[in-house]
Amino acid sequence: MLRLGMVGGGQGAYIGNIHRLASRLDGQWQLVAGAFDVDPERGRAFAISQGLDPARSYGTYAELIAGEAGREDRVDAVAICTPNFTHYPIAKALIEAGFDVICEKPLTATLEDAVALEKLARESGRFVGVTYTYSGYPMVHEARVRVARGELGAIRTVQVEYPLEWMATAIEQSGNAQAAWRTDPKKNGRGGSIGDIGTHAYHLAGFVTGLTLESLTADLATFVGGRALDDNAHVMMRYQGGARGLLWSSQVAIGNSNGVRLRVFGEKGSLQWFQEQPNELVFTPLDGRVQIIKRGADDLSEDARLRIRTPPGHPEGYLEAFANLYAGFAEAIRARQEGREPSLLGQNLPLAYDGLKGVAFVEAVVDSHEAEGQPWLTPVAV
Amino acid sequence: MLRLGMVGGGQGAYIGNIHRLASRLDGQWQLVAGAFDVDPERGRAFAISQGLDPARSYGTYAELIAGEAGREDRVDAVAICTPNFTHYPIAKALIEAGFDVICEKPLTATLEDAVALEKLARESGRFVGVTYTYSGYPMVHEARVRVARGELGAIRTVQVEYPLEWMATAIEQSGNAQAAWRTDPKKNGRGGSIGDIGTHAYHLAGFVTGLTLESLTADLATFVGGRALDDNAHVMMRYQGGARGLLWSSQVAIGNSNGVRLRVFGEKGSLQWFQEQPNELVFTPLDGRVQIIKRGADDLSEDARLRIRTPPGHPEGYLEAFANLYAGFAEAIRARQEGREPSLLGQNLPLAYDGLKGVAFVEAVVDSHEAEGQPWLTPVAV
Amino acid sequence: MLRLGMVGGGQGAYIGNIHRLASRLDGQWQLVAGAFDVDPERGRAFAISQGLDPARSYGTYAELIAGEAGREDRVDAVAICTPNFTHYPIAKALIEAGFDVICEKPLTATLEDAVALEKLARESGRFVGVTYTYSGYPMVHEARVRVARGELGAIRTVQVEYPLEWMATAIEQSGNAQAAWRTDPKKNGRGGSIGDIGTHAYHLAGFVTGLTLESLTADLATFVGGRALDDNAHVMMRYQGGARGLLWSSQVAIGNSNGVRLRVFGEKGSLQWFQEQPNELVFTPLDGRVQIIKRGADDLSEDARLRIRTPPGHPEGYLEAFANLYAGFAEAIRARQEGREPSLLGQNLPLAYDGLKGVAFVEAVVDSHEAEGQPWLTPVAV
Amino acid sequence: MLRLGMVGGGQGAYIGNIHRLASRLDGQWQLVAGAFDVDPERGRAFAISQGLDPARSYGTYAELIAGEAGREDRVDAVAICTPNFTHYPIAKALIEAGFDVICEKPLTATLEDAVALEKLARESGRFVGVTYTYSGYPMVHEARVRVARGELGAIRTVQVEYPLEWMATAIEQSGNAQAAWRTDPKKNGRGGSIGDIGTHAYHLAGFVTGLTLESLTADLATFVGGRALDDNAHVMMRYQGGARGLLWSSQVAIGNSNGVRLRVFGEKGSLQWFQEQPNELVFTPLDGRVQIIKRGADDLSEDARLRIRTPPGHPEGYLEAFANLYAGFAEAIRARQEGREPSLLGQNLPLAYDGLKGVAFVEAVVDSHEAEGQPWLTPVAV
Repeated sequence: MLRLGMVGGGQGAYIGNIHRLASRLDGQWQLVAGAFDVDPERGRAFAISQGLDPARSYGTYAELIAGEAGREDRVDAVAICTPNFTHYPIAKALIEAGFDVICEKPLTATLEDAVALEKLARESGRFVGVTYTYSGYPMVHEARVRVARGELGAIRTVQVEYPLEWMATAIEQSGNAQAAWRTDPKKNGRGGSIGDIGTHAYHLAGFVTGLTLESLTADLATFVGGRALDDNAHVMMRYQGGARGLLWSSQVAIGNSNGVRLRVFGEKGSLQWFQEQPNELVFTPLDGRVQIIKRGADDLSEDARLRIRTPPGHPEGYLEAFANLYAGFAEAIRARQEGREPSLLGQNLPLAYDGLKGVAFVEAVVDSHEAEGQPWLTPVAV
Repeated sequence: MLRLGMVGGGQGAYIGNIHRLASRLDGQWQLVAGAFDVDPERGRAFAISQGLDPARSYGTYAELIAGEAGREDRVDAVAICTPNFTHYPIAKALIEAGFDVICEKPLTATLEDAVALEKLARESGRFVGVTYTYSGYPMVHEARVRVARGELGAIRTVQVEYPLEWMATAIEQSGNAQAAWRTDPKKNGRGGSIGDIGTHAYHLAGFVTGLTLESLTADLATFVGGRALDDNAHVMMRYQGGARGLLWSSQVAIGNSNGVRLRVFGEKGSLQWFQEQPNELVFTPLDGRVQIIKRGADDLSEDARLRIRTPPGHPEGYLEAFANLYAGFAEAIRARQEGREPSLLGQNLPLAYDGLKGVAFVEAVVDSHEAEGQPWLTPVAV
Repeated sequence: MLRLGMVGGGQGAYIGNIHRLASRLDGQWQLVAGAFDVDPERGRAFAISQGLDPARSYGTYAELIAGEAGREDRVDAVAICTPNFTHYPIAKALIEAGFDVICEKPLTATLEDAVALEKLARESGRFVGVTYTYSGYPMVHEARVRVARGELGAIRTVQVEYPLEWMATAIEQSGNAQAAWRTDPKKNGRGGSIGDIGTHAYHLAGFVTGLTLESLTADLATFVGGRALDDNAHVMMRYQGGARGLLWSSQVAIGNSNGVRLRVFGEKGSLQWFQEQPNELVFTPLDGRVQIIKRGADDLSEDARLRIRTPPGHPEGYLEAFANLYAGFAEAIRARQEGREPSLLGQNLPLAYDGLKGVAFVEAVVDSHEAEGQPWLTPVAV
Repeated sequence: MLRLGMVGGGQGAYIGNIHRLASRLDGQWQLVAGAFDVDPERGRAFAISQGLDPARSYGTYAELIAGEAGREDRVDAVAICTPNFTHYPIAKALIEAGFDVICEKPLTATLEDAVALEKLARESGRFVGVTYTYSGYPMVHEARVRVARGELGAIRTVQVEYPLEWMATAIEQSGNAQAAWRTDPKKNGRGGSIGDIGTHAYHLAGFVTGLTLESLTADLATFVGGRALDDNAHVMMRYQGGARGLLWSSQVAIGNSNGVRLRVFGEKGSLQWFQEQPNELVFTPLDGRVQIIKRGADDLSEDARLRIRTPPGHPEGYLEAFANLYAGFAEAIRARQEGREPSLLGQNLPLAYDGLKGVAFVEAVVDSHEAEGQPWLTPVAV
């Protein structure tokens, strides 16, 4: 088993708990150290409540780095589950101390930080994984493989959307902490819905199609009064090679719980994946019938198979997708430790450069929106 | 019964047959005269094959006008089912001869013609209906009424799309006549997918929401080699009052037969309507459950009820929607003949101004796309 | 055009209106005579309101027979839309007077009448069509053809159901006329839900599979207090050759508007058809993917194509299915008039023997239920 | 953490792996001992491959009992994942040695064994949980609570089905071990599809409705040649109080991966749950709209909430449901250890009596089928 440390994600934190559940599922990671809270005492207490060794229940990430650095059984990687604007300093300190990192998205709150962190990751040779969850789903890998194999032919248009409803009213003004930091530019960065969820949609589209963005133009809106960031974003995209894309993200789309939906149309067929029904791909070949490719079907790619735990018809979901990221990170880290190539499970993972692309995308979206006439812009990393 | 004449729509014509089926369904219209074909002989033969009086089986629309003008039992209205670029001269001649008109969409092939025709319609006082089919569906009326009543509150964003697959390859080059004229700028006008189907989507969104467009920016693409017009269109829209819209039309979206889909999100709820499942509206109130409003439900508006012929669960479809337009046109024409206000069935019909708006929309879309940087433009009629 | 007469189906009658709409759609039938109401005056007034010649606006069916019998332009067929228990005497009189008949289902209210009527139809050579609506849907024909071609291999099990919700409370006690006669054994016959809708399900299953029933056992229930007939029926069936079937009909299944659903499983594949989404068949081959066969797909059978009026994606529904029955009846009647074989449109129609089978099925279901231990019984006609 | 032992479920075993994944998810169970294989060496090797202490890597269940009995840190419970016919002797030995037991379904392969085991469980006071997986789903609990609260009123009819496709051909004859033991009466018991999956459907229906079976009649079929047990089962049920039920299980229903579907109709509403879309309940109140109750909705019962790990729209599936059983077993066992009442999580669990009911149901189904005329029978435990 690999040893996992965690920064942030303590009592009441949504995403920290998801990291713990997901890392535990396959029995490949053991959480052994943590600095879980901005309040050191609360963080230590939480660590102990999770059954951690008190000696590894740290008050701050600096203590964690100091404490783990000297141990024989030091953690193999540290997951960063803190607010966006702290990702960079924490990741930087960890990398410089020689730790591998698993970082929540977005990689950082500013483009400057993202550029620096990606450079640091690249030059240090440390592993930096970014938890773009949706790329953990087996049927998303299946879609990626089928596009790469040419089953759709040249891609023509990509329709991707990520609508949510939970911020349809000003819940950030009535005590919802999750909504509060997401609507605070200092903590969240310049993008509202586009930064929080649009970046997932953008990553998903690029992950599946393999297309490289050429330019974009964006129209943001803030519908809830008193909100400082966008809560609805429309983006038109042009990819290199001529494909087009349309992206919609919204935090105010009543009726949508977590409506990530990707549709890819090529000259020879189309694929559709909907996150709330993640165990199937809808595939239509040119002049053929609409078909359901089920998770677990006999003709799935090895990439998908490696990310499946149950037979067809036994639904897998979000935690399994997240666990697939952790399984992939484990394989990638082990392969580096062992000086070998990773298996397919350790390939096609979201890494620091993907994190940078996401931040650069959001930056370009906001820049386009804010400039007169919403010019077409090219993100600094694509 | 009202007496119907028809120009175009003869042997092998798709839309002419739809007009005949739809006008017949309710027993309110009787087809009594026609100039069905650009080839006079073929047109007359077709008329006779339809059981028309040989005396009213005309070779040209000019003959039809001349022949009907002098009759006691002259036609009450004439349906124009000819290629787009001929709509204007035919409609003009009919209106000037005092006939009411039912015109296929788009109203005309050029903006100039559309402006002129709308003016003529307005000033002449003749009835000019335009067959934007989707506004014939009862659940589209239901959506319109619910938005108008304020059930969604202020509208925030509108997602509307009209993807098709049938032109995913260059079928216009291998003898498909329907595809041939649709890809010929002279016959179809400047818009490809945006003119043929995007205009339906635009009308539907405006019809349901009651919003007035402020401006748009567009990105068109032509994916099939050798095609002169766009076959995929992305449009970002801003409505007066701040609502936003995203519109996608495509003739190359494999897997989509006739995928008209409208989603409207307001501050108090959302509505979704999908043309391939037209007998239901998906409604979600703020903080409430996703709900299915079925055609025929007890709490439907009178507007919807008047457009329903069968109980809930007994599907109605495209022909019934088209027949609702004909029923509405009949009521509107009768009301004018009788000097009274039309009932609800004769209200909220697509008329000449709606036709003009559609043509102006397409013009603005193509203008925006063709201009450097895809500026936001305002159509001349909104 | 063929000339249609109608008995019953006057003011406020649901099914009479459906017959009129459906017979009109294709322009092949013209309603020219009728005795629409048990009250002669009301019937004549209704006839005139429908634009019928006063001379052919009859007070009783006897008058209609007498009046039409002597005309050159006598009706080609008469549709019977009266309460079940009157079908037999009316049909008998019509047949004996030499008229072809289109009869609502069930053929008769008693088995005795059904046997007699089927015999009369057979021996007289008159055409007797029965409006089992669901066999008018093009995709039901498609399913039938595919089963007949062997695409599913030998059939193993058939799951068919027809749940409704509208009689979930005792609406027959508060003035609902439709519910009142359906719950009155004298007017409806011995079967409640099984007679009203179970018989549709039974016909549909046999129509698609071509299987012949061997025996059945049934468990009926009456859930609404004060109701004299079953409102929920469970039936287990064994077909000749070894296939099995399960049939459920219910008038109290809240949430179901008109939930006719058929699933057929064979050794080589399965087919599923759901009436509320009638434009598609779900097909799964052995070891293959779930696929959608759309109405209008290129590889449809001629049987289905002949029953389609619009392209794929343009929904057709209940009225079109009903119109297909009328189109089929027209073709069958014309072929007999012209002494030729009918085209495919005039084949595979529900006729008197199908009506008899339906009545015999209901009889056997009620007999099995009422006998001690619910024995397996074989209907007198299968 | 509780300490888990396991008997069976070694290399290549499907269900053993599921138990391990599910028990691990919440960090409440640690697998510390096992006798994983009928081949002692292979079992020990597997144990070590799972990271178990070699001292607790046992060759047989007898060794496991002997070895664990003497330890301070002995296992808290032992999961039995062996073939059906061995459940009884293993469970008996474990109980008699004072261990709590988590047993795969069916409880035993024979009714005699089931009666004995349930009696032993009851009299010994040991905890015996049975893994009827579907009762682990939060929305199944939600359905149960809503029925219990009376939201549907008195239940009228229950439609439950469990179709599978994987045994549509004789795969047991070509080396599929999973199919081989399921079709072998000695290993599987007398019921084929009815024993393997029909029993899940039966448990699910009873679990949600709280109804007690009164009697049943059954029609079994074996469609695949050479198969000794049924692969398709139809059952009509009568519950105490007058409700009716229809149950279908099939191993040959092509197109169905794991199609567990439950529909419950009461006098005031209906609920529908489909295992392949487990995160929602479809609810329709009398005279109301079809509604989607989402997992995570604000108004869910505490029973459901306690079994949820992610927000609405983030799918949870089979493993999470299984983990909920393990979480419930943990709570129940801890509560007994601590001499307190369990929280809601430790209530409404499938226990030995539920296992007995399942075996008795299968026995009655097969008895009814095999008797002349398929009499209505009452299982010995209901």
